[in-house]
Amino acid sequence: MLKMGLLGCGRIGQVHARTIRGLDNARLVAVADAVPEAAQALAARSGAETRSAEDILAATDIDAVVIGTPTDTHFDYIHAAARAGKAIFCEKPIDMSVDRIRACMDVVAAAGVPFMTGFNRRFDPNFASLRNRIAKGAIGAIELVQITSRDPAPPPLSYIARSGGLFRDMMIHDFDMARFLMGEEFVRLHAVGAALVDPAIGEAGDVDTAAVILTTASGRICQISNSRRAAYGYDQRIEVHGESGMLRAENQLETTVELANGDGFHRDRAQHFFLERYEAAFRNEMTAFIDAVETGATPTPSIGDGLMAQIMADAADLSRQTGQPVDLTTG
Amino acid sequence: MLKMGLLGCGRIGQVHARTIRGLDNARLVAVADAVPEAAQALAARSGAETRSAEDILAATDIDAVVIGTPTDTHFDYIHAAARAGKAIFCEKPIDMSVDRIRACMDVVAAAGVPFMTGFNRRFDPNFASLRNRIAKGAIGAIELVQITSRDPAPPPLSYIARSGGLFRDMMIHDFDMARFLMGEEFVRLHAVGAALVDPAIGEAGDVDTAAVILTTASGRICQISNSRRAAYGYDQRIEVHGESGMLRAENQLETTVELANGDGFHRDRAQHFFLERYEAAFRNEMTAFIDAVETGATPTPSIGDGLMAQIMADAADLSRQTGQPVDLTTG
Amino acid sequence: MLKMGLLGCGRIGQVHARTIRGLDNARLVAVADAVPEAAQALAARSGAETRSAEDILAATDIDAVVIGTPTDTHFDYIHAAARAGKAIFCEKPIDMSVDRIRACMDVVAAAGVPFMTGFNRRFDPNFASLRNRIAKGAIGAIELVQITSRDPAPPPLSYIARSGGLFRDMMIHDFDMARFLMGEEFVRLHAVGAALVDPAIGEAGDVDTAAVILTTASGRICQISNSRRAAYGYDQRIEVHGESGMLRAENQLETTVELANGDGFHRDRAQHFFLERYEAAFRNEMTAFIDAVETGATPTPSIGDGLMAQIMADAADLSRQTGQPVDLTTG
Amino acid sequence: MLKMGLLGCGRIGQVHARTIRGLDNARLVAVADAVPEAAQALAARSGAETRSAEDILAATDIDAVVIGTPTDTHFDYIHAAARAGKAIFCEKPIDMSVDRIRACMDVVAAAGVPFMTGFNRRFDPNFASLRNRIAKGAIGAIELVQITSRDPAPPPLSYIARSGGLFRDMMIHDFDMARFLMGEEFVRLHAVGAALVDPAIGEAGDVDTAAVILTTASGRICQISNSRRAAYGYDQRIEVHGESGMLRAENQLETTVELANGDGFHRDRAQHFFLERYEAAFRNEMTAFIDAVETGATPTPSIGDGLMAQIMADAADLSRQTGQPVDLTTG
Repeated sequence: MLKMGLLGCGRIGQVHARTIRGLDNARLVAVADAVPEAAQALAARSGAETRSAEDILAATDIDAVVIGTPTDTHFDYIHAAARAGKAIFCEKPIDMSVDRIRACMDVVAAAGVPFMTGFNRRFDPNFASLRNRIAKGAIGAIELVQITSRDPAPPPLSYIARSGGLFRDMMIHDFDMARFLMGEEFVRLHAVGAALVDPAIGEAGDVDTAAVILTTASGRICQISNSRRAAYGYDQRIEVHGESGMLRAENQLETTVELANGDGFHRDRAQHFFLERYEAAFRNEMTAFIDAVETGATPTPSIGDGLMAQIMADAADLSRQTGQPVDLTTG
Repeated sequence: MLKMGLLGCGRIGQVHARTIRGLDNARLVAVADAVPEAAQALAARSGAETRSAEDILAATDIDAVVIGTPTDTHFDYIHAAARAGKAIFCEKPIDMSVDRIRACMDVVAAAGVPFMTGFNRRFDPNFASLRNRIAKGAIGAIELVQITSRDPAPPPLSYIARSGGLFRDMMIHDFDMARFLMGEEFVRLHAVGAALVDPAIGEAGDVDTAAVILTTASGRICQISNSRRAAYGYDQRIEVHGESGMLRAENQLETTVELANGDGFHRDRAQHFFLERYEAAFRNEMTAFIDAVETGATPTPSIGDGLMAQIMADAADLSRQTGQPVDLTTG
Repeated sequence: MLKMGLLGCGRIGQVHARTIRGLDNARLVAVADAVPEAAQALAARSGAETRSAEDILAATDIDAVVIGTPTDTHFDYIHAAARAGKAIFCEKPIDMSVDRIRACMDVVAAAGVPFMTGFNRRFDPNFASLRNRIAKGAIGAIELVQITSRDPAPPPLSYIARSGGLFRDMMIHDFDMARFLMGEEFVRLHAVGAALVDPAIGEAGDVDTAAVILTTASGRICQISNSRRAAYGYDQRIEVHGESGMLRAENQLETTVELANGDGFHRDRAQHFFLERYEAAFRNEMTAFIDAVETGATPTPSIGDGLMAQIMADAADLSRQTGQPVDLTTG
Repeated sequence: MLKMGLLGCGRIGQVHARTIRGLDNARLVAVADAVPEAAQALAARSGAETRSAEDILAATDIDAVVIGTPTDTHFDYIHAAARAGKAIFCEKPIDMSVDRIRACMDVVAAAGVPFMTGFNRRFDPNFASLRNRIAKGAIGAIELVQITSRDPAPPPLSYIARSGGLFRDMMIHDFDMARFLMGEEFVRLHAVGAALVDPAIGEAGDVDTAAVILTTASGRICQISNSRRAAYGYDQRIEVHGESGMLRAENQLETTVELANGDGFHRDRAQHFFLERYEAAFRNEMTAFIDAVETGATPTPSIGDGLMAQIMADAADLSRQTGQPVDLTTG
């Protein structure tokens, strides 16, 4: 029975609390949030106490912490949790600064505590199945990976301003997925992007439409495209070509119903956004973390995976601004 | 906050207990089962007490009961629950005897208690969406309904022997669905069937493959086909033709992944069986019952819906044996 | 090089003329039509002569005739062609009268000439592939066949009046397909039908919406549904269930293009009607006839196949009118 | 009635000859081929004469020529045909040298003869429909185009050696398609590629797997991926994202049949290669050329379209070799 504390009671914290409540081998002991009402509401629904973040990190009756607070707090909480010997689940991105993530890696390594980075998409049943089939040789050696990721609509400009930009906020998931699927590190990256959805996003220095080509040392290729807008719902697709075939994961639609009429055949929109599409992924992710800690296995994705994705996001931002490819091996 | 008692802690009772646990407006007070260990295990997981069925039916701290016990116990439990003024959710079939269902209807009507029959498929998100679109006129007046229902594999012969036969055990769901979708009562039924999957099923007096044609007074048609076997998973599909188009609900596959190789394009099997396919349906069904009781609305499907489906199942069995159509209006 | 004559230069005659023109092992020598202009126009496009039907049937420079004239002329032309020793391709239905078809069978058998009945759908690449896979054991022994056939819109009432009714004019194709796929003769048939599309069709004594259940001696089942209307195009689908799986053939859509927008995912209508959907089937059918005659093989579907489908159509009409099943073995 | 001559009686010449034979407004007068037997065989099947290429180009009874000979002969034939005042249909690529294509443009412009470049894919019914819907505003302004093109298997090494390389031989079609769909010229290109399918292709200086990112002045993006191998058949797909939705064209499979068994749901391979997949495209292309010449309209794609695609192919080859983006505006 893993005794857990939760830092951050916002949308994602609530998702994790619900998962923990449904498990037999974990218990949510306490929750914390900068907004006391948020902590109290989640505590009431979860049968947990409210405590301060500091108390949770220092508590002797808590074995593991879930960090779902704003990104700029992760660094301090990771340091405190590691020093207190707690297992750590931390939402992505670990930090906006690659140097600070490296510092976190060092403290986590020194403390020897389990650490998992919250790249939830690895746990989506479709993508996980696709990865398993690659591992079992269903398509032989991989030649080209193609990832499509499009949000249903842009976030508020205020969010974009503090998001680190599309590559660090959105495509970072796809960088991790590309590494997860390819099984060979990327050595070179070229990114393009523009503000085609909303000029205000461009005026804020960001892009809302982007594409990236990545290559490995052996010449394997990954194409990623992102957009902040998709009229038909959250577009989350992957296609992997190998020597003996292709694997692809399609979107999950709202229902399986099809209407046929004088205009043709009509199916539903894709599930609206990440809370719907990745509901099972979030559940499987937290379950995997808890199972790893309980059994002594090393959780993945690791803090190193979080670091690599951030390095790629920084490189993409640089490439988009300079118009030149970036070498990923000189980090 | 609806205080609930659960009779029957088997597979379906566990499904309902889990749903109730996740709701804010209901609480599972007590559970009962003929096997004490089953009751204790579910009670422990649900934070409920174990009591005898009689105690639950007589309890003053319980407002509603969920009856998930063997079919031959439903009659007595419905009578006791109705007389005790409790809201009743009863699994299908209510009883194998149409006369005894009528007796239950009478006692429920006399007591004035809410009653819901457990035809879970009405609450499947796909079928519910299909029905809503019919109601909104998406295809105009209905002309023909086609229902396909195939189990992944036959149950044990011991189950078949006490099941009442394919029409009462399996196709009863499709009879309810046909009525739910058509919106006009059926007046005539013709059934055929054979034991093509397993001769032993035929020797037991039952069939494992069957088809039925139903017609309404205005000439509208429903075709149903059932089989106890489908190599590719639980096959649950509906197609409805109307004056301006068709609506169809396809199976839910295990994942959205597709493999393309030298043999073509390959997708996953359909979800294995009813616990997987109708997971959301069971949740939505119990939620609807609780919401109806809490708000004072009349729950549907009603006990009368349970009666009509049983009448149709009896008629199908008779038609299959005699080889002649059966008039449904002379019941 | 098979030297051919064509009787009937209407829509279907033109289809056959075009096929013959594209083949290396056949030549269209002459065409005939009751309307001289129709014959002349087709002759000009085909590099053929115009002759009278009688001259074609008597010609010594013609080996095979294609009969695509109105149904009531088939009987005389078949007799004349058989007696003249010509190979015969005759459009369905061979005749509206089962007795007269039997008379044609006798004269054809006596003459020993090759004869093929124009059930084009057996040559649709999708249905032919489905049949081949059944024959190769892809799904084991067949248990249930389901055929859906819906025209895009009803023909003129004047056509319906002389069509012999839906079962003889439209479902006759599905009766042949059911026999083609099942591989075991049907022994019993139950039909229902109504005029739901257009009351005037009902006033003319016909139906526009119908369903039939067929069973074989061993209990295998076939379900057929027909409608004179389908808003989304010509609906031609087949589904076959066997002991180890299912085979199904879907409609051919106008293009493979899909539009995704705020309303969901949208594909094209099904191909409009039989000239589009069965373009390849008509070509493959005539090619098969010519190849059979050239190689001395026996063409199928045979005149006996034409007879059986007509017997089933008569039985369906009777069953629909009486409301009772019809025994097919007492013909 | 357009009187036509055909230069080149190989695979593609035969395709064009068959199309012309089926048309009412054109006649194939003569054919030529370096291999006399090839010319004679096609002439026999087409009802045409055999002549030398020079005689066809000089003939007064021929209005238009179809050039389907090896690429290195195009330049001379185009010059001769233009000077003889003939309408010209020329297969792609027009020439391997951009300068020589410019010279052809000049002579064609000076002669004022109609000219069409054989980019057949513009006439594929799926892609043409997709383009028409873009033009009608189905998805608003385009933001991103994604083109996937994969051959079923690599050609012989001897072919690759004289092909000009993957970008000039294969991706040139996709460059034309990108321009056709985007409606705005591209200004920048970045290409990557490797020999992942066969190392011998790499040793020959070519690649067999490649990806390209193109951008327009306004920031719109096109992603292209190519491979010389696809186990599941010829993979020809397009996806276009716009401000209000997405349009995509899927592959055409061999049949619509689906097999469901214990391993899941299985559909056929994609149509094998370009003769199958683009059968309608080749027919529509030649029909459009003939109609344009007959009506006096200007055929498209033009010789300028052929030039632009070749410029992009050259740029892609350079970018792949240097690892740097190439500016397309400085040509």
